[in-house]
Amino acid sequence: MPLGERAGDKSESRYCGVETEFNDDMPHVLAFNLSSGGFDFVVAPLMDPAYRPSLMQKDCSGSGVLPFASSDLVLSPSQWSSHVVGKVSSWIDLDSEDEKLRIDSEITLKQEIAWASHLSLQACLLPPPKGTSCANYARCVNQILQGLNNMQLWLRIPLVKPDDDSVGINPDHVIDSWEMWNSFRLLCEHHSQLSVALDIMSTLPSANSLGRWFGESVKAALVNTDSFLTNARGYPCLSKRHQRLVTGFFNHSIQIVISGEQVHGFPRATSDLISNHNDNVEGSQRHPLRPYLDYVGYLYQRMDLLPEQERFEIGYRDFLQSPLQPLMDNLEAQTYETFEKDSVKYIQYQRAICKALLDRVPDEKSFEINTVLMVVGAGRGPLVRASLQAAEETGRKLKVYAVEKNPNAVVTLNSLVKLEGWENLVTIVSCDMRHWDAPEKADILVSELLGSFGDNELSPECLDGAQRFLKQDGISIPSSYTSFIQPVTASKLYTDVKAHKDLLHFETAYVVKLHNVARLASPQPVFTFTHPRQSTEGSNQRYKKLLFEIPSDTGSALVHGFAGYFDATLYKDVHLGIEPSTATPNMFSWFAIFFPLRTPVCVGRGSTLEVNFWRCCSPTKVWYEWCVASPSSSPIHNSNGRSYWVGL
Amino acid sequence: MPLGERAGDKSESRYCGVETEFNDDMPHVLAFNLSSGGFDFVVAPLMDPAYRPSLMQKDCSGSGVLPFASSDLVLSPSQWSSHVVGKVSSWIDLDSEDEKLRIDSEITLKQEIAWASHLSLQACLLPPPKGTSCANYARCVNQILQGLNNMQLWLRIPLVKPDDDSVGINPDHVIDSWEMWNSFRLLCEHHSQLSVALDIMSTLPSANSLGRWFGESVKAALVNTDSFLTNARGYPCLSKRHQRLVTGFFNHSIQIVISGEQVHGFPRATSDLISNHNDNVEGSQRHPLRPYLDYVGYLYQRMDLLPEQERFEIGYRDFLQSPLQPLMDNLEAQTYETFEKDSVKYIQYQRAICKALLDRVPDEKSFEINTVLMVVGAGRGPLVRASLQAAEETGRKLKVYAVEKNPNAVVTLNSLVKLEGWENLVTIVSCDMRHWDAPEKADILVSELLGSFGDNELSPECLDGAQRFLKQDGISIPSSYTSFIQPVTASKLYTDVKAHKDLLHFETAYVVKLHNVARLASPQPVFTFTHPRQSTEGSNQRYKKLLFEIPSDTGSALVHGFAGYFDATLYKDVHLGIEPSTATPNMFSWFAIFFPLRTPVCVGRGSTLEVNFWRCCSPTKVWYEWCVASPSSSPIHNSNGRSYWVGL
Repeated sequence: MPLGERAGDKSESRYCGVETEFNDDMPHVLAFNLSSGGFDFVVAPLMDPAYRPSLMQKDCSGSGVLPFASSDLVLSPSQWSSHVVGKVSSWIDLDSEDEKLRIDSEITLKQEIAWASHLSLQACLLPPPKGTSCANYARCVNQILQGLNNMQLWLRIPLVKPDDDSVGINPDHVIDSWEMWNSFRLLCEHHSQLSVALDIMSTLPSANSLGRWFGESVKAALVNTDSFLTNARGYPCLSKRHQRLVTGFFNHSIQIVISGEQVHGFPRATSDLISNHNDNVEGSQRHPLRPYLDYVGYLYQRMDLLPEQERFEIGYRDFLQSPLQPLMDNLEAQTYETFEKDSVKYIQYQRAICKALLDRVPDEKSFEINTVLMVVGAGRGPLVRASLQAAEETGRKLKVYAVEKNPNAVVTLNSLVKLEGWENLVTIVSCDMRHWDAPEKADILVSELLGSFGDNELSPECLDGAQRFLKQDGISIPSSYTSFIQPVTASKLYTDVKAHKDLLHFETAYVVKLHNVARLASPQPVFTFTHPRQSTEGSNQRYKKLLFEIPSDTGSALVHGFAGYFDATLYKDVHLGIEPSTATPNMFSWFAIFFPLRTPVCVGRGSTLEVNFWRCCSPTKVWYEWCVASPSSSPIHNSNGRSYWVGL
Repeated sequence: MPLGERAGDKSESRYCGVETEFNDDMPHVLAFNLSSGGFDFVVAPLMDPAYRPSLMQKDCSGSGVLPFASSDLVLSPSQWSSHVVGKVSSWIDLDSEDEKLRIDSEITLKQEIAWASHLSLQACLLPPPKGTSCANYARCVNQILQGLNNMQLWLRIPLVKPDDDSVGINPDHVIDSWEMWNSFRLLCEHHSQLSVALDIMSTLPSANSLGRWFGESVKAALVNTDSFLTNARGYPCLSKRHQRLVTGFFNHSIQIVISGEQVHGFPRATSDLISNHNDNVEGSQRHPLRPYLDYVGYLYQRMDLLPEQERFEIGYRDFLQSPLQPLMDNLEAQTYETFEKDSVKYIQYQRAICKALLDRVPDEKSFEINTVLMVVGAGRGPLVRASLQAAEETGRKLKVYAVEKNPNAVVTLNSLVKLEGWENLVTIVSCDMRHWDAPEKADILVSELLGSFGDNELSPECLDGAQRFLKQDGISIPSSYTSFIQPVTASKLYTDVKAHKDLLHFETAYVVKLHNVARLASPQPVFTFTHPRQSTEGSNQRYKKLLFEIPSDTGSALVHGFAGYFDATLYKDVHLGIEPSTATPNMFSWFAIFFPLRTPVCVGRGSTLEVNFWRCCSPTKVWYEWCVASPSSSPIHNSNGRSYWVGL
């Protein structure tokens, strides 16, 4: 039974599981834990833990039947796949010094996964690597992954990281479990069916260290009963930090699994009260872990509702989209429709235009001066409307030119002007702003040509072309914009890019609603453009070298690429942007941009990451190149724009 | 005029160049340095060093002619390409903080390379990166490389590395020029047209540090006149360490270029003596650097002649070959022919068989006992001959079975037996040893089934099959064999593997005559097989984890893969092998094997490299998997033998 219903949230994290002991009566295991206990699934051993292949009779006279828990017939196929996660024998140790144990472990692992595949289970839980070395375990799992059906393998990893400040301990010699996972998944090449099941303990690493896991493929969190505290009434509860972590898991589709023994004594009197919430309790047998499940359910139900915008965007999370090419291609009506709905954006524009009009025309001349405002890239007219509203709000006289290169948008614009009766105020110009021969010069140039990375839809090149018809002292709205990047762990995005198996996709920037991502350092500014340009010299080429310090309490981290954002100054203090620390609230026109790395770069604890970004221009196109130069050098991505470019 | 003629050596290192100043009279430059000076080529600036693009007139009214040295017509196309290496302006600094200088540098670099391409020069010398950072320089060179004709770009790198023991200097903060090169070429993705020109100074780094360069693509060494000493007669000479280095360059096809001013005064009297060696000195003008050239020529001519075997193998240097599959495929006559010529190998076999016969049959029973010896995999008979010679040498009676699966080789074997009159001594069996139903059991089993990596041609599986007909106390020759690996820098091999642009070639082992390779640590044993096997249990699967310590005076190093070897104990103290420290001299049957890495692994100064190797078996094939697990984890190569395997 799901933990709750949250509008818009259909994620797996509504389901809660329980880890069980070996029992060859699987129907009983399900009845006890699901029907009676209220859990949604069990994480159950598939094989008798006493089994060792080397102890089996070698000859064929023995029965040869492997000691699996039940035959496949005791449950229906849908019960197996919906309610059982296989738990691989925890004694296996493929990196043992003991060769016999190593070989027994490999045979058992392969037999158990084969059995789980036979049952079409959705996932199997693999025990954690036993020591500091995991190469042979990874080699064997990697072999299995090459031929696996749709099943997921969840590698159990204890959530531990040595505290850097531990007295007398050299942190270089203590294992950070993230590093173990990192090594394992690099050996297995980021296989998409290999994920993590985190073992949650009573103590937690630092927030920066925990944050790394939200960029990884974590599918489950096994919360041990030991990690619960006892509340005043004797019931289990979690510390504030644990609560925040569990809420984070819910928000990242990570399923909770209750693990361990009942370690809290419950006052008998109130247990009836709790069981009232559950009509399907079978008889009198009460599941010892039920209070833990109830507490997890309480945390789930207590979460804030998702805001409407977030609900709308949930389907876009971590989904790679190619950026628009609005200069080369004409946008479709549907695209205009979507962007025009972003009222927050146009309110900001209107505020900026108001301020510009007031600066440009003093009150005493407001009847005298007719300000010439040109909307360059007018689309279907939202900035024309914002401009006219600003004129009305400030009591300034305005003459508007609406310049638009897309003849299809001009049709709509034309009807709008007629419908609103703006014929005397607005002149429509069906022309590319770079080639228009304007009849007069403008006081104010208004445009919305920015992409997720600011200049990536060629706003600089377009506005350079339009500047010809801006007065010497004229104003451009926006007056400047800056792009930003930050390094991220984003294994989902990396795996999706890698699935294309070509260079092109690794050298392309994507528009993405970032979610399953760990942000490893604060964003830093990359390229800035200011309009109007003060000189016709110089070019729109740019080069920036950036140094990111990863906080040392993060530990080591893997960089899959860079999240990119922009911030624009529309006019004076009116800005617009998506850089996380200053993002304009409730604006939905832009997701972030993502620049992948062909080979993820591992950055050691407290190390500096050197990143280089270039904006390059040729007569026909603009493109970015990027690379990492420290701690190790990556190839330079997208040389000469061979994979990804924006056409002029 | 070449430095000399060395039998068999046709390498570029016979030619010696000289670095010159800017001079727009190129015919004079060639006349003075080649005809009069005796050099083979000049490294000459192509562009007036005073030129700066930003100082040129912007408008088109200026002549717009770039200040290159001479027009293309002043020399013939073949003179340009044979005798001139372009030297790119040394003032350029693409990683300067000064944006104007950076942009001027980029424009100039592109103009000069374009001019050099226009002239079809074979190479251009690029100035060294100026600071610790080289990302923008590398980005620009990488863009140029994407569209370059056949020209090579030689990046000039000063041969310096901080001494680890320098008092008060933290070696982490001093630049090792190899690291600069490593960063540059990683940014340019090991482009095959990007190489190194080393600047040789008066002091040299440690031998281990120098050794790294022999695994790199070094095309030239610029020996500065400052690095020469003065001999008793006032002439320039080099220190012993410099001499060894220069000899190393000659052996690796690296061209010497004399650079700098004349800094040695020469007694006038003897200069005529020297000029006697050169009939083409023009008039009285003597080239000031001629004594340096003469000394380099003396070093060249002083080198030992290449041994015959080395001369024969010169064409195979660093050439990737697929290993034989003698079990699945039948060898060709030509292959037998080549291998049978390796007399050293058969002498070792004969010695081993002698010792075995003497151990098996005491003198007093030598007339009584007829030893049964079976050659399994007899081919065209060389081991049959060695066995009979051993019997004769020791005075022991021998009955030989020659078992061979290749029916074509059996034909030759049959004629050999008739020709030699061995009909009463030798029984030919045309059969795969794994399936032969032997009429009696053998005292001695002799085989030559080893590949470059020992077990890689499936000797273990074949001998397991043959062991059925070996007596309980019988002897196998070889009695055991062990494979070895060592990490290497091998940029030529890496580039050649990468040129295939697929996974398969990165997951294949190659037979190679290793030459342009830096061996970074001593070889370590990997897998050992002993025959006859003591038990039928266990398998021929193997797993080995190896830790290599790179000597700390090497500095950082890049591992492109692993060189593999074997050593076999034929019988008691008679061994045979190619592991460098114990290699059997003058044996030519085996080159080394090379296991590549898909992404080269950089190992920091004094770091440990953890490598894992597996030998995996299925009913139909045997294959290796390999990976690096530290300092960073590589993917596991060749999972399930997906790319490379040996058929059973």
